[in-house]
Amino acid sequence: MKIGIVGGTGDIGEGMAMRLSPFYDVVVGSREQDKAEATCIMGREQLLKRGKTCSLNGVTNQAAIDAADIVILAIPFKHVAGTLATLHGFENKIVVSPVNPMEKQDHFVFVPPNEGSAALMIQKMLPKEARICSAFNTIAANKWKALDEELDYSVPVCSDDADAKKEVMAVVNRISHLKAFDAGPLSVSSMVESLTPLLLNIARYNKMRDVGIRFH
Amino acid sequence: MKIGIVGGTGDIGEGMAMRLSPFYDVVVGSREQDKAEATCIMGREQLLKRGKTCSLNGVTNQAAIDAADIVILAIPFKHVAGTLATLHGFENKIVVSPVNPMEKQDHFVFVPPNEGSAALMIQKMLPKEARICSAFNTIAANKWKALDEELDYSVPVCSDDADAKKEVMAVVNRISHLKAFDAGPLSVSSMVESLTPLLLNIARYNKMRDVGIRFH
Repeated sequence: MKIGIVGGTGDIGEGMAMRLSPFYDVVVGSREQDKAEATCIMGREQLLKRGKTCSLNGVTNQAAIDAADIVILAIPFKHVAGTLATLHGFENKIVVSPVNPMEKQDHFVFVPPNEGSAALMIQKMLPKEARICSAFNTIAANKWKALDEELDYSVPVCSDDADAKKEVMAVVNRISHLKAFDAGPLSVSSMVESLTPLLLNIARYNKMRDVGIRFH
Repeated sequence: MKIGIVGGTGDIGEGMAMRLSPFYDVVVGSREQDKAEATCIMGREQLLKRGKTCSLNGVTNQAAIDAADIVILAIPFKHVAGTLATLHGFENKIVVSPVNPMEKQDHFVFVPPNEGSAALMIQKMLPKEARICSAFNTIAANKWKALDEELDYSVPVCSDDADAKKEVMAVVNRISHLKAFDAGPLSVSSMVESLTPLLLNIARYNKMRDVGIRFH
């Protein structure tokens, strides 16, 4: 199975690519292919150093979509609309949104778009045949990249497409100690997306770093 | 310190009263004093059976407020406005809202009032001198009542009153293994309140019971 990461050279995309590429063919997308290739060279080195083989290739964002079965949109909320407007070919792909619409004031605030959540906005922007899921919303970039640390977190997954949800949950469960939980339909993805500003505030006010969540 | 529980004979209030009364003077309020007294008789028995002494007394909701330093509003969201309209004397009290505005459709949905959250609505309804905090939002009624089980959860606490928040966090930290986290000002309490419908959905879709949350 091929996983394409749009924005794969960003803070979160880079770590995701490294975590996923020992298990899946990962195509890292970027606006500039050179940057994507550089990220992959670095990623392969990091993994090789740890005795892991991987499948990690740098391409453009469009080529990452074209090649992939699952497309992860690893882009900050403010760039989602602009980026999606330049891309196509999402039909019949599983599209994963880890996007959290939030703003930093004195603290972090959940500021959803009119659709109610980033995932619902993305659903509206993409063709009907795109199979939208939200997942990975609450895993901090630093944690993705800290390859020597296990990721011991719960990951709520929302989707209206039961099979797509199942596939994404299986991907989640392959990574470190992540555990996927079915969190219901895409209409309630706002309750997942708002976790991230909450966790950032918890970190800030309690002098913690990269706070995650576990359901039990 | 005296803790008054408005709605103390309800599902959540009853368990809270039993958990708190070994450490604090707890006054259980109800619309009917008889019911509050019956709850306290039952609660004292449950605690005595486990070799615990307690201070647990049943009164009316108004008497619970009048007696207390900290008032917990253990009432479902749909009854909050109606109940508060019949009560007074909240000035200079710490008022704790564990209230979650949500509706059950096919799944649970966060449906905040116009103010943005139950805590903000309560703040608007009560006199300015009331010191509003939100806390205990995500602890399930069954867990409160299961006295032989430890409560091993994180509890985000929001307030604009730093001293009130500190006192409420200290109360949280006295109960079983609960751990209080400063989650910021009351303006972001919606991000805490929306956790509860998320957890109820997680329980439903993953065949779990009484799901709670831990930050780490």
